[in-house]
Amino acid sequence: MRAAVMRGERLVVDTVPEPEPAAGEVLVRTLACGICGSDLHALKHAKLMVANSIEAGSPFVMDLERDIVMGHEFCAEVLDYGPDTQKRLAPGTRVVSMPILVRGMSAATVGYSNDFPGGYGERMILNDALLLPVPNGLPTEHAALTEPMAVGLHAVMKAQLAKSDAPLVVGCGPVGLAVIGALKLRGVGPIVAADFSPMRRALAEKLGADHLIDPREGSGYAELARVAPGRTAVIFECVGVPGMLHEITKSAPVGARVVVVGVCMQEDRIKPMLAISKELQLQFVLGYLPSEFAETLGAIAEGKLDVAPLITGRVGLGGVAGAFEDLATPDAHAKILVEPARA
Amino acid sequence: MRAAVMRGERLVVDTVPEPEPAAGEVLVRTLACGICGSDLHALKHAKLMVANSIEAGSPFVMDLERDIVMGHEFCAEVLDYGPDTQKRLAPGTRVVSMPILVRGMSAATVGYSNDFPGGYGERMILNDALLLPVPNGLPTEHAALTEPMAVGLHAVMKAQLAKSDAPLVVGCGPVGLAVIGALKLRGVGPIVAADFSPMRRALAEKLGADHLIDPREGSGYAELARVAPGRTAVIFECVGVPGMLHEITKSAPVGARVVVVGVCMQEDRIKPMLAISKELQLQFVLGYLPSEFAETLGAIAEGKLDVAPLITGRVGLGGVAGAFEDLATPDAHAKILVEPARA
Repeated sequence: MRAAVMRGERLVVDTVPEPEPAAGEVLVRTLACGICGSDLHALKHAKLMVANSIEAGSPFVMDLERDIVMGHEFCAEVLDYGPDTQKRLAPGTRVVSMPILVRGMSAATVGYSNDFPGGYGERMILNDALLLPVPNGLPTEHAALTEPMAVGLHAVMKAQLAKSDAPLVVGCGPVGLAVIGALKLRGVGPIVAADFSPMRRALAEKLGADHLIDPREGSGYAELARVAPGRTAVIFECVGVPGMLHEITKSAPVGARVVVVGVCMQEDRIKPMLAISKELQLQFVLGYLPSEFAETLGAIAEGKLDVAPLITGRVGLGGVAGAFEDLATPDAHAKILVEPARA
Repeated sequence: MRAAVMRGERLVVDTVPEPEPAAGEVLVRTLACGICGSDLHALKHAKLMVANSIEAGSPFVMDLERDIVMGHEFCAEVLDYGPDTQKRLAPGTRVVSMPILVRGMSAATVGYSNDFPGGYGERMILNDALLLPVPNGLPTEHAALTEPMAVGLHAVMKAQLAKSDAPLVVGCGPVGLAVIGALKLRGVGPIVAADFSPMRRALAEKLGADHLIDPREGSGYAELARVAPGRTAVIFECVGVPGMLHEITKSAPVGARVVVVGVCMQEDRIKPMLAISKELQLQFVLGYLPSEFAETLGAIAEGKLDVAPLITGRVGLGGVAGAFEDLATPDAHAKILVEPARA
């Protein structure tokens, strides 16, 4: 099949082996797959990502000498079943799934694996048991946003927000927008959000942010204190570049909780004394629970979570490399979808 | 009066101005004052400490050009009252107090102030309202340990330990020992504690640790998994030197909470990806609440918290500089008390 392949540190379109479903697995056709910031990181910092995986003792370690088909934010269509499957869903049914493939005693992350291609290829294999059918009438492109939006819901759930807390979202890229959407979904407010990009601030407002801050002109921390006086600041770090944690520990008010959702691949520097003197809490988060993934799909389908504004571009496989470059400019895009069937 | 004075980056014994109690204040005679690791840090990294205070926006910034009399872990005796005081406690009464002095609209930390001498001097002034009388029969040297032990209780309270959690104390200096004592006081167990020093491990056992680990020979994390399988690791970082946070994020199990009690003055490096991949939480803590301070004094007085093993040395004012040097060797001492009346 055809796929946009990560080979060395480049993205190329090539023919790769056809994936074959084993017991409990399903062959699906990729309909749409979002490009994630983590994929940009992975392409740019592939060796660092592998080194981090090894250091963390992760069972998922990519071999960069071999091809990798990325893409883990997908909506697909059931094509065929492997052996020992329940065949709950008829071929042609549109589905989403957490990007995890369990085979026997091992598991892989779909989209960060040498063995299991992700959504930047025409076809994938998924676990039958993990498939969630897309509710009738929900556009494919919106269903494809289940995965990134679930990241936001998980971060909000991990924050364990009380009535006495008030959220500040730092960075309004796709991760920050997912957090804002989840805060709104959960009825948390007021929501203060900060980003340098006017386009991203406009999207943040569409997703539900109540107060938008351009850090060149004002402080999100001061705005939070103004609009939610006396409440505990819960700061969602959604930027994920070196220096952000220091910036937040320096600027956060006493007693703040920081939920680290942005993925910083590189080593970073902090000043523990700043965090100690304010008794800050840093809660690092990753992924989501199956229940959060399913809840997110439901919320999108029921119109409680409007993801339409996030989609700013669509490309075929030949456009993936260019889309990666475009996404490096914060004011050009939020989410670009890869549609392998697109010319 | 005589005092061991921090002058420049040295400790010298000299005569300093007699402290004079203003409205609401009390003049006390220092009976005993523990030497804290933070004092060692302050002497060695004074400029860094000041820079950190400024960066954190702290109202407490020391002027290193002027004398500072350190010492904030004290037991003292009431000598005389300033104006507008309730005179609840008769002269001669032994007292402890949180090392904070509120005067008018400003506040200072006793022991880290140019204006208010700490317990390395013969006399101090304290706020009348903050004095806690030492229960009759409690030795002065044990009462002086209220402050450092309260740090441990606060850290344990901030950890919000559930039945499904299990503690690992990394580092068994005075801070780690205070945490172990507080865990025992709160009925939390089993307690796994790790330190390179045999002397500190022996003290940790006396304070209540159930399983002692020499990191050269084994892993505290593995021991915790062995003795408390299935429980969430709550790791108390009680070392406070650069590199510890990286070491812990690297070694901690998935989902662990880290309570950062050790005070690392220097900039430090972490790898956020390690913390993200395990969804770690870092809770930085500082000091204690007034209620925790009072509870600690009560627990020591009632024999629920045995602090006697911690006291490994006593010096007069002339011995303070030497004691600071001795404390740099982990196997020589836990807590050295300064007794200004001692020859």
